[in-house]
Amino acid sequence: MTTLDHTHDPSARSWLASANVPGTDFPIQNLPFSVLRSHGSNEAFRGAVAIGDQALDLAALSATGTIAGAAGEALKLAAQDTLNDFMAGGPGAWRALRHALFDALKEGAASQQAVRACLIPLVDVEYRLPTRIGDYTDFYTSIHHARNVGRVIRPEDPLTPNFQWLPVAYHGRSSSVVISGTNYHRPHGQAKLPGSSAPVYTACTRLDFELEMGFFIGPGNALGHPVPLAEAEQHIFGMCLLNDWSARDHQFWEMNPLGPFLGKNFCTSISPWVVTMDALAPFRLPFERPADEPQPLAYLDETHNRQSGSLDVQLTVNIESAQHRQQGLTPAEVSRTSFRHQYWTIAQMLTQHTVGGCNLQPGDLCGTGTISGPTPSEAGAIVELSQGGTRPITLAGTGEQRTFLEDGDAVILRGWCERTGAARIGFGECRGMVLPAIS
Amino acid sequence: MTTLDHTHDPSARSWLASANVPGTDFPIQNLPFSVLRSHGSNEAFRGAVAIGDQALDLAALSATGTIAGAAGEALKLAAQDTLNDFMAGGPGAWRALRHALFDALKEGAASQQAVRACLIPLVDVEYRLPTRIGDYTDFYTSIHHARNVGRVIRPEDPLTPNFQWLPVAYHGRSSSVVISGTNYHRPHGQAKLPGSSAPVYTACTRLDFELEMGFFIGPGNALGHPVPLAEAEQHIFGMCLLNDWSARDHQFWEMNPLGPFLGKNFCTSISPWVVTMDALAPFRLPFERPADEPQPLAYLDETHNRQSGSLDVQLTVNIESAQHRQQGLTPAEVSRTSFRHQYWTIAQMLTQHTVGGCNLQPGDLCGTGTISGPTPSEAGAIVELSQGGTRPITLAGTGEQRTFLEDGDAVILRGWCERTGAARIGFGECRGMVLPAIS
Repeated sequence: MTTLDHTHDPSARSWLASANVPGTDFPIQNLPFSVLRSHGSNEAFRGAVAIGDQALDLAALSATGTIAGAAGEALKLAAQDTLNDFMAGGPGAWRALRHALFDALKEGAASQQAVRACLIPLVDVEYRLPTRIGDYTDFYTSIHHARNVGRVIRPEDPLTPNFQWLPVAYHGRSSSVVISGTNYHRPHGQAKLPGSSAPVYTACTRLDFELEMGFFIGPGNALGHPVPLAEAEQHIFGMCLLNDWSARDHQFWEMNPLGPFLGKNFCTSISPWVVTMDALAPFRLPFERPADEPQPLAYLDETHNRQSGSLDVQLTVNIESAQHRQQGLTPAEVSRTSFRHQYWTIAQMLTQHTVGGCNLQPGDLCGTGTISGPTPSEAGAIVELSQGGTRPITLAGTGEQRTFLEDGDAVILRGWCERTGAARIGFGECRGMVLPAIS
Repeated sequence: MTTLDHTHDPSARSWLASANVPGTDFPIQNLPFSVLRSHGSNEAFRGAVAIGDQALDLAALSATGTIAGAAGEALKLAAQDTLNDFMAGGPGAWRALRHALFDALKEGAASQQAVRACLIPLVDVEYRLPTRIGDYTDFYTSIHHARNVGRVIRPEDPLTPNFQWLPVAYHGRSSSVVISGTNYHRPHGQAKLPGSSAPVYTACTRLDFELEMGFFIGPGNALGHPVPLAEAEQHIFGMCLLNDWSARDHQFWEMNPLGPFLGKNFCTSISPWVVTMDALAPFRLPFERPADEPQPLAYLDETHNRQSGSLDVQLTVNIESAQHRQQGLTPAEVSRTSFRHQYWTIAQMLTQHTVGGCNLQPGDLCGTGTISGPTPSEAGAIVELSQGGTRPITLAGTGEQRTFLEDGDAVILRGWCERTGAARIGFGECRGMVLPAIS
């Protein structure tokens, strides 16, 4: 785990006024990475860092020659049209660049003029995926989600016996991971209605979101070479928000025995900004495993990391219906929780992923699985909030009811970290809207 | 489906004598593609076509200027260090190049001298994966395999209700797909022994192979745009052999509810030569669905393709133990079957994959799932042959017994097509060996 240094100092301020506004997601202590260009342009995509209401264009910054040495080399990697090479650079490169960017952006920095010329207003940019994702893996690490969904599918035995022993995961589809702001059409597929003897081909009638976080792999491991838990976080670059859209009717019909496939692979949305593990360092929490739960096997035992295994990221889900938009109303918050409640840490997830020798590659994406907290209002999927579609939820503002998502519903995930003695940092948002099925 | 033309004429002969030897996998009617270079060299990898006991170096051939026009453009694509762009070229490009290569290699071809200079003996080459695999998907389409394995896991209900309605599939791990000849260490992971209350961390004790075929995606489809069944085969370039190595103890403990993960992602082997759908055209068979089975829903109905949906590829699995090698004995054949017995066709698999809008990309790999025929000796996995590890099989030659694979066992898959009135064509082999677990 990263130790705190001057880049975490909550009193640090930038010469850019918008970075010092209370409540901004992107103060000088954050410095998340993305890949972007000016909206609607034919410019090349390049790496960028968010600061206040601006994006710092790293290709432009690299061209100024302002940042030299190891940080300058890291800057060249981060300025490319994907962040894969920068992520492969490892914690040394990441930290060198973080420190150099912090120094260039802080109040009184000598290079202020040159750096200011590299800023683009965030309202004027368009993003693409921050990496070329080789493989995407989705975990299943909220015990509350597992119990809530398990009750819908297997009322007699909601939690499978393996859940408390290992971070369960499945392979997802990397080609259909999209950047926030991408809308998609309600998918078709097979579903079997209760009581019927045969399935039907139908547009999804039980469309859902899943509130997740994603984490990006830094340096990879060779095939056949597991990553021990104590080294796991050296292989994790940072985190984003992730919406694992789910067609529950298709999923529940297809998933036995080999797991979710079409129920998930039509679209997975991620937020554009990747918040580094360095930036998240002030928000680590002890890894807790209640004494009455099975204690992890040695290779997954977080003993070395008991003080910092978890991570307190506040998360919300909002639904913006067509009515909200038409009437100019604030989207309706439908869930609020924290990532701290996950049963397994991201280090445990990474070590489990490699325990059999599976090779991870720089820029690969892992999802944490749905993040549902311990109380009903903290559920991270509508199938949980509506108790399997049996109890509609009411959207604030319009008073509309929802058991599942309807056409025109946009789902907006947000995440941020705050605590006394640290600067608040945020993830921005992850947004996507359901378009009608194509007939 | 491809119509037959002069490139399928069984009486056609090459000026290369080894291509005309009865029983060769690579007569002039085959012309499969791979990516290779001279063994142990630092040469760039490039596309190649197999002919007799030689590889035709497509980069060298392209440089000669012997092949012009549309075929010459296709040749440039196929000469690259991956076949992704060539596969993206579509059936027109594939066929143009097939015809040009056939003409250049047939008896009496004017360009014989120039082409001969581009040959490399197959014994002198090393291969790598033919494509940069974006995503790898594994299907589950043998009803005999599903019943055999289902009995081990769910004796009361071996076949899940969805099997007869859709080609079941799950996402696999693309990073750990390796080329034939790559050996791997027995993986570690969690397993739960019968009767114990807690799992253990252990090297796999139930290591298995799975006899499969793979197929490569040609032109992709855009996210949100399903591929109708009638167009499905235009998106399939060709096929290879695939061994979906499986750690059964790890798999059976982890896979409920989200499917196989570590039980599969430590290694997946494929054969180097991709046999095109054009070459396979003489070996198509009617798609059959017995009247007492559920008939496919309309979007999966092969009515248009009843004469040619299936594919008769003969397949064998051989085990070569350390004793076989030490004593110079022939590997032991442990299974022999045909791909014709699969319940779903590759066209149905592709259409199902995209029905919800999932985007396939050129060079993506799909596995067909284990290929087990209707009789016990046709089972494509040792867990079936040994009835869940309860009845050891005996290896011919050494008389050794096996319930699962042991260290030093090499598994060799072979495939070929033959019928009266067509030239026999083959797939070469897919080989991999189990090395001891790393302690």
